[in-house]
Amino acid sequence: MPTLLRLDSSSSGEASVSRKLTDVFSEAWQARDADHVAVARDLHAEPVPHLADASLHWPSRLRPVGAPSLPEAEAAQNAVIEQLLGADVLLVGAPMYNYSLPSTLKAWLDQVHVPGLTAPFDGDTQPMHGKTAVIVTTRGAIYDEGTPSAGWDHVVPPLQIVLGTALGMRVEVVVVTRTLSTSVAALVGERDAFEREFAAAGDELRRLATAL
Amino acid sequence: MPTLLRLDSSSSGEASVSRKLTDVFSEAWQARDADHVAVARDLHAEPVPHLADASLHWPSRLRPVGAPSLPEAEAAQNAVIEQLLGADVLLVGAPMYNYSLPSTLKAWLDQVHVPGLTAPFDGDTQPMHGKTAVIVTTRGAIYDEGTPSAGWDHVVPPLQIVLGTALGMRVEVVVVTRTLSTSVAALVGERDAFEREFAAAGDELRRLATAL
Repeated sequence: MPTLLRLDSSSSGEASVSRKLTDVFSEAWQARDADHVAVARDLHAEPVPHLADASLHWPSRLRPVGAPSLPEAEAAQNAVIEQLLGADVLLVGAPMYNYSLPSTLKAWLDQVHVPGLTAPFDGDTQPMHGKTAVIVTTRGAIYDEGTPSAGWDHVVPPLQIVLGTALGMRVEVVVVTRTLSTSVAALVGERDAFEREFAAAGDELRRLATAL
Repeated sequence: MPTLLRLDSSSSGEASVSRKLTDVFSEAWQARDADHVAVARDLHAEPVPHLADASLHWPSRLRPVGAPSLPEAEAAQNAVIEQLLGADVLLVGAPMYNYSLPSTLKAWLDQVHVPGLTAPFDGDTQPMHGKTAVIVTTRGAIYDEGTPSAGWDHVVPPLQIVLGTALGMRVEVVVVTRTLSTSVAALVGERDAFEREFAAAGDELRRLATAL
């Protein structure tokens, strides 16, 4: 059964733009046939813990001498990793918060990047190699090339490095900017551009959900 | 009383390099005279919550219609902000975890960036303007210019944008790389370079702690 793991991390509730778009992908995925299933994990509603100790960045055989024994934290981490390894496609709702990842999504990323287990270290361990991660990233304001805030996105790059370079996944990125144009007066003039970006993102996500 | 707010976010316990360096600054600061006091907040041991709802990114007068009432989350956020506003100098231990901020430090950053309260929005509100933030950032491997991982740091840029550009603080950055050279065999040849960087960072932090 081709399994989608869908992660959301928005704290905007019903108003979330990233959730509307992960909905689009997830619905198109499940509409393919009864075999296409989706597992949803809401990192805002039910956060995974912060990584309890830096030693958990490594599998037990690679941990430093004297690393603390943390069976509960390790079990929680293993469950997060198993859920990822069980997915054929990963969908990540990744709104830009303060130019970086939501803290809830960062906590998830810290749990799953384990060199020697999910990424190469002392061997070529890379169980997610070749699978696709679709990142749906939303940004409140304008970050176009040539504007003062071009280059202020620090959401996609760490996801690209960890999921793409380290875990070996194919990373697709779908971006929508100007989401604050529906609520912040100074950005009202950007509303049409936002609506166009939003529609284009939905089209691209429907295309990916049927092509992958 | 000139007050230092010291934040740590390492999950490495006794082995933490960033904590050794925030220790250096904090001790040099308090050694100036009895008036120089330090408040320490360990974001790993006692994390601040993830921002409960995106509406808390704004002060109440700027929140969208229909934003949820979250008095407990708001009180927790106000306490974090008040602690920052009470500081004359901010010291941030910011190890690079998976090319980005520790999730605990990101949660703190999300609590304090409130346009219209701590940053300009509908006025020039900027209570931390001109105060100094000293960022002590440590990185496990090699990120020198010209290497494949140059530009992989997504820790300092969001801190610089929020604390510097938005809150108006003067930002000083002290970097130590190669911290894994003491524990990862493949990096043992970098140990001397690490020791030199570590010593230079300590010198710079002692200088800053007496000059600010």
